[in-house]
Amino acid sequence: MEKLLIVSGKYLLTIDPEGTILEDSAVVIAGETIIEIGPASELTGRYPDAELLAEPCGLIMPGLINTHTHAAMSCFRGLADDLPLMQWLQEYIFPREARLTGEIVYYSTLLSLCEMIRSGTTSFNDMYLFAADVARAADESGMRAWLGEVLYDFPSPNYGELENGFAYMEQLFADYSGHELITITVNPHAVYTCSPELLLRLGEMAADRGAVYHIHLSENRDEVETCRERHGASPVRHLKNLGLLSDRMLAAHCVQLDDEEIALLAGSEVKVAHCMESNMKLASGTAPVVRMLEACVCVGIGTDGSASNNDVDMFGEMNTVAKVHKVARMDPTAMDADTTLYLATMGGARALGAENRVGSLEVGKKADLIILDLDQPHLTPMYHPVSHLVYAARGADVIHSVINGRIVMENRKIISLDEQAILAHMGEIRRQIITS
Amino acid sequence: MEKLLIVSGKYLLTIDPEGTILEDSAVVIAGETIIEIGPASELTGRYPDAELLAEPCGLIMPGLINTHTHAAMSCFRGLADDLPLMQWLQEYIFPREARLTGEIVYYSTLLSLCEMIRSGTTSFNDMYLFAADVARAADESGMRAWLGEVLYDFPSPNYGELENGFAYMEQLFADYSGHELITITVNPHAVYTCSPELLLRLGEMAADRGAVYHIHLSENRDEVETCRERHGASPVRHLKNLGLLSDRMLAAHCVQLDDEEIALLAGSEVKVAHCMESNMKLASGTAPVVRMLEACVCVGIGTDGSASNNDVDMFGEMNTVAKVHKVARMDPTAMDADTTLYLATMGGARALGAENRVGSLEVGKKADLIILDLDQPHLTPMYHPVSHLVYAARGADVIHSVINGRIVMENRKIISLDEQAILAHMGEIRRQIITS
Repeated sequence: MEKLLIVSGKYLLTIDPEGTILEDSAVVIAGETIIEIGPASELTGRYPDAELLAEPCGLIMPGLINTHTHAAMSCFRGLADDLPLMQWLQEYIFPREARLTGEIVYYSTLLSLCEMIRSGTTSFNDMYLFAADVARAADESGMRAWLGEVLYDFPSPNYGELENGFAYMEQLFADYSGHELITITVNPHAVYTCSPELLLRLGEMAADRGAVYHIHLSENRDEVETCRERHGASPVRHLKNLGLLSDRMLAAHCVQLDDEEIALLAGSEVKVAHCMESNMKLASGTAPVVRMLEACVCVGIGTDGSASNNDVDMFGEMNTVAKVHKVARMDPTAMDADTTLYLATMGGARALGAENRVGSLEVGKKADLIILDLDQPHLTPMYHPVSHLVYAARGADVIHSVINGRIVMENRKIISLDEQAILAHMGEIRRQIITS
Repeated sequence: MEKLLIVSGKYLLTIDPEGTILEDSAVVIAGETIIEIGPASELTGRYPDAELLAEPCGLIMPGLINTHTHAAMSCFRGLADDLPLMQWLQEYIFPREARLTGEIVYYSTLLSLCEMIRSGTTSFNDMYLFAADVARAADESGMRAWLGEVLYDFPSPNYGELENGFAYMEQLFADYSGHELITITVNPHAVYTCSPELLLRLGEMAADRGAVYHIHLSENRDEVETCRERHGASPVRHLKNLGLLSDRMLAAHCVQLDDEEIALLAGSEVKVAHCMESNMKLASGTAPVVRMLEACVCVGIGTDGSASNNDVDMFGEMNTVAKVHKVARMDPTAMDADTTLYLATMGGARALGAENRVGSLEVGKKADLIILDLDQPHLTPMYHPVSHLVYAARGADVIHSVINGRIVMENRKIISLDEQAILAHMGEIRRQIITS
């Protein structure tokens, strides 16, 4: 029989269709799978030989799902802020990205994964350069990852000419075929950096592979304006005209949308990664998420990269998402705590087509869960666990993390990675970046 | 000679007029006062008998100043969210406030003070009921506090008829006259709950006592509309007509302001407590803080109470403030990190008329400082300390806190209060509140 792990706590948030919240309950995990959920005392009695992770003042919930990241951009965190977008990109980010190496991407991704694990994220969806190095870092971390190499019309610091990018993607698909935790995705950068031919060719690749088609879409007004000038249509309509809107598409940002575009996304079952803090910091605008949800668009939450956020803390992101839409609509009932928590868990799972595997704690699903320590001033008193998770909890409240049945963090110590070695190595990478 | 304490770290942010940031430096404290700032090695050599709080990976900065709180409302944290303001107040908050006791206020204030100390706040400005119990809690915590009893036209759960409220205030002034850390303020609730006569009478009290006149002002559209109907003027103009705008006034919120009102506040040297997260959660609007700063209005940051935020974490508040105004103005250069950090430190000190005592680390000032642990993934790599403090740091990164020269938290353990006893007692208060 497979090794059993029982995780017990004061509260257990399932995020199942009924939103069940249990008290003094436990999750029984066999290998990577949840096999039972019920009263802690009964289950620990029934499985006396199981390994036990018991937290009497703890709250157990599904791990958070970050639907849009550039994890390796942690190496640029705080390098430059408070600048107009094009100045920031052209003076600070692009020149340094041009000199990136696989080694920098590998370590900088590991750094973000430490931060993600520490702040309760168990799955992430990454788009960046040197994706094989991102995958290597993800594999070592034990996290669940969707990732792929970003492609655009210009030569890449990684693969050089575009044609090599296709070969690079083929190799990624081959290397991670059947991998338990890593799923390869297709990543056209955006409509303003990819020709219609490239967008279409990658659309075919995604269809052939059954892969997620992950793209930046309608992030800001400049993008919309540029697309209108070049293609005579807004970014969403441009993709529709190309026949590319589909249930395989995961569109990051979707800030500048009109109601007709929202209906197009809904009708095509396009998924959206909502990256509110990045959109705020870069002054891109407020995505009409409430209207998207009313139109039944599937929405997940993403942090974007640490260069524009400046963290990958999904608890902070939930806190912001829940509050911003209230003031944007002048309606305190907008984006309530339950909805926000759903977006960060099951919403993300659905956005990645993984709703049958992760996003909630239910029998038969993969065991991706986190435990928060409730015995703290800012989480006291306790009336409604969901309220605390969205409006008061912080990433630092997560004390244990289990991914695919494996304990990756215990008592705030990351088990799967050598965090101190990673932090030390970032000192060297910092020196390379400031002198490059 | 007084006992000496030396605090040293990797970075030392002074928030002095030049924004000086020192490396490998230390602060020497004699009693409650900073007597020297300089290279750590030199100062520790010169004062070999001083107590040493050394944090080689630490960042030392002035403690944060929370300019608008209702600390005791922590007892209502998460009791009800996502509701229209009047329903939330009338169904959940007012009925329970009517049954508050001094004991509940005392413990709930202690709870908030634990959270404040843990998240880097060293000074707070509180308006609530049972202010003598707030003061008792503040005194025990060792925090620097401005506080007073909230007064309005209606009978109070604390003092009953209004006339008793004046006697209660007289007693507070008498009890805390000359207190090192506690300063009594005058607290008319708002223009819609206080008659012109009450506002004027409290204005005289504040002038006689040289006290801060702390009032909620122009928080939302309803307040403005009600004031226009009753008094034929907006809240700011109503106070101007009464002759009450002065450099002694600290006005919380100031969300709904036109340019003429901003000029009135600037011309009268009224100070503003900006409570962005509360304004977001209650959908009150976005205060025109950038325009206020352009008009040279003195602005500090406040969290408001935990019932409408739902925390008192000033790091979270800074993070939100810096981002919200960028997207509100569609300008990524708005509210830069330096400005935001200034508001949370020196801005708050100026708002409370305490700029000669706190808000920066300079020789002769009171030693109110915090130390953050930088050796963490989300604060790595380090390019600019101010960027990290505003965009990436969290309250939980604060490991030590010194207030008025006294260590009140060391290695995340609060020295001045029995945190576990307070948390335990909140269980009893929770039971009283849900059954009341």
